[in-house]
Amino acid sequence: MKAGDRAVVVGAGSWGTALAWVLARGGYETLLYARRGDQAERIAACGENEEYLPGCALPEGLTPVSDLPDALQGTGLVVIAVPSPWFRDACRRISGSAGDGTLYVSVSKGIEEGSLRRMSEVMAEELPGGRYTVLSGPSFAREVVREQPTAVVVASEDEDAAREVQGAFSGSRLRLYTNRDVVGVELGGAVKNVIAIAAGAVEGLGLGTNTLAALITRGLAEMRRLALPLGAQADTLSGLSGLGDLVLTCTGALSRNRQVGARLAEGETLAAIEASMRMVAEGIRTTLSVCALADMAGVEVPIAQTVNRILNQRKPPREAVEDLMGRELKEEFWS
Amino acid sequence: MKAGDRAVVVGAGSWGTALAWVLARGGYETLLYARRGDQAERIAACGENEEYLPGCALPEGLTPVSDLPDALQGTGLVVIAVPSPWFRDACRRISGSAGDGTLYVSVSKGIEEGSLRRMSEVMAEELPGGRYTVLSGPSFAREVVREQPTAVVVASEDEDAAREVQGAFSGSRLRLYTNRDVVGVELGGAVKNVIAIAAGAVEGLGLGTNTLAALITRGLAEMRRLALPLGAQADTLSGLSGLGDLVLTCTGALSRNRQVGARLAEGETLAAIEASMRMVAEGIRTTLSVCALADMAGVEVPIAQTVNRILNQRKPPREAVEDLMGRELKEEFWS
Repeated sequence: MKAGDRAVVVGAGSWGTALAWVLARGGYETLLYARRGDQAERIAACGENEEYLPGCALPEGLTPVSDLPDALQGTGLVVIAVPSPWFRDACRRISGSAGDGTLYVSVSKGIEEGSLRRMSEVMAEELPGGRYTVLSGPSFAREVVREQPTAVVVASEDEDAAREVQGAFSGSRLRLYTNRDVVGVELGGAVKNVIAIAAGAVEGLGLGTNTLAALITRGLAEMRRLALPLGAQADTLSGLSGLGDLVLTCTGALSRNRQVGARLAEGETLAAIEASMRMVAEGIRTTLSVCALADMAGVEVPIAQTVNRILNQRKPPREAVEDLMGRELKEEFWS
Repeated sequence: MKAGDRAVVVGAGSWGTALAWVLARGGYETLLYARRGDQAERIAACGENEEYLPGCALPEGLTPVSDLPDALQGTGLVVIAVPSPWFRDACRRISGSAGDGTLYVSVSKGIEEGSLRRMSEVMAEELPGGRYTVLSGPSFAREVVREQPTAVVVASEDEDAAREVQGAFSGSRLRLYTNRDVVGVELGGAVKNVIAIAAGAVEGLGLGTNTLAALITRGLAEMRRLALPLGAQADTLSGLSGLGDLVLTCTGALSRNRQVGARLAEGETLAAIEASMRMVAEGIRTTLSVCALADMAGVEVPIAQTVNRILNQRKPPREAVEDLMGRELKEEFWS
């Protein structure tokens, strides 16, 4: 990092705010872009993002803004931290104002509905001339800003770009490890949110931790089954952004996707759950995409199909999960 | 199972009691052997194993006993459920009284100190003429007797023996999947208890769930690194008895090994912890064996070495774990 380097984080949710905090603490002049002007103002006035990351004081060098074209002037590093359904739109709004050679970091975990594009593919389509990286791994935002040790992966086909991002975030207790397997990192991050909804349902149904451990094991197998034919590397899926994030999301109290599954199992409707959540649970939208990708690849994804039946076909969670456990646990290995 | 078939479970700890409960419910005449005569009497008098599995009423057909030679007469199925340090001794006490062709099931997770034998190897040495199987997987005893769905593996080089054990336990919500990879199942079960002590230390030090997820990820890598050169199959280690049990033991509230790590991190001495625990935390003894096996195989096991320093070299947990995280997380992949 050179003195006076500037970074923009697009999206002032909890993860965007935490990453802006890390960059600012590392010496970047960091602009945190919130689409709603009142949100940026409130963050600035409170000195913290009360809504999405309460209790974390903004460090020196972090400025909330709501004028994106202005923020992007002269910026070499842009982190895109919006939920995947709005990712393409965010890229389009960035594209007019960012310079050639801008280094982009996607931190969104999902697969675009309809197109079934991964976020790095959306960046390449919408932000030509940029350099693309993807950051993913087991990382609750709140723990990162409490400086609890956190290890994630930054993936890129452009090794120099990955190294630059690694350097940009260094110096805090958030560590980034480079990896070339963009496909594996993105698919792992997407699938784990779907499995986490099933994990929440297991919890909400009172099925216990033995069942949960079996589900996580089969969840990793399902992730591999889907991602390997699409070009992912097995090691990536067994690494931080695959298994690591799967375990965190399926067992950690802070996981939104897990909460969705638990509340569905307890009888709440999806509409009521979504209406009550301030933050997006990515797994809800990703489930359909994962099922569609699996159809395309010709592989079976029984856990994702089960979540799909619960979310989109109103199948009672108990019945759906019992069908799954009956089916899924026929043999130890199947591919 | 044929009417009147008899099974003996040697060892009346929580897991032995739970498995005896499953067998008796499945129609076996089941004898639960406790070494101390007063323990068998108390279990019989209370109608439950108050000490190790409180709240679980003995089903019809389950009888606590303390005369082992007598119990073994005419028994075709023997489950050995004693902690690994006493496993060889238990086998020796069985050997005089059991008939040829007896089907043995080891459910102990550990590696013998000194000899570095796996439990199936100890069985083969001490119980010649028997048929040997190993049962392992993510399975807290309490959840099994609450009939929460639980999936484990039964491994044997003798496929018929594995199938018989599978059949013996069927009919409850405990499911057994057969696997030929005895080495992988046994090494996974041993290593996970060591990693769980580190997981507990991470928790006790307040390092958070991001760190825990990274540790579990590296723990699976360490398990693979040790077990593959010793003959294990990669799929087994990613399955129920490897990854599944690792996740359960590192995150589940009921894990004794995890509790040991947490209490060490909170400043208790190992002696005080061991004195206060009714049940054995296998990982304590297994740590030295895992480190010795790794030396033999010429592979690095930094997590097990860290646990060894805490347990056996009085290294302060915070310092040890921080050294580990600094070292361990240099790159995403290394073998």
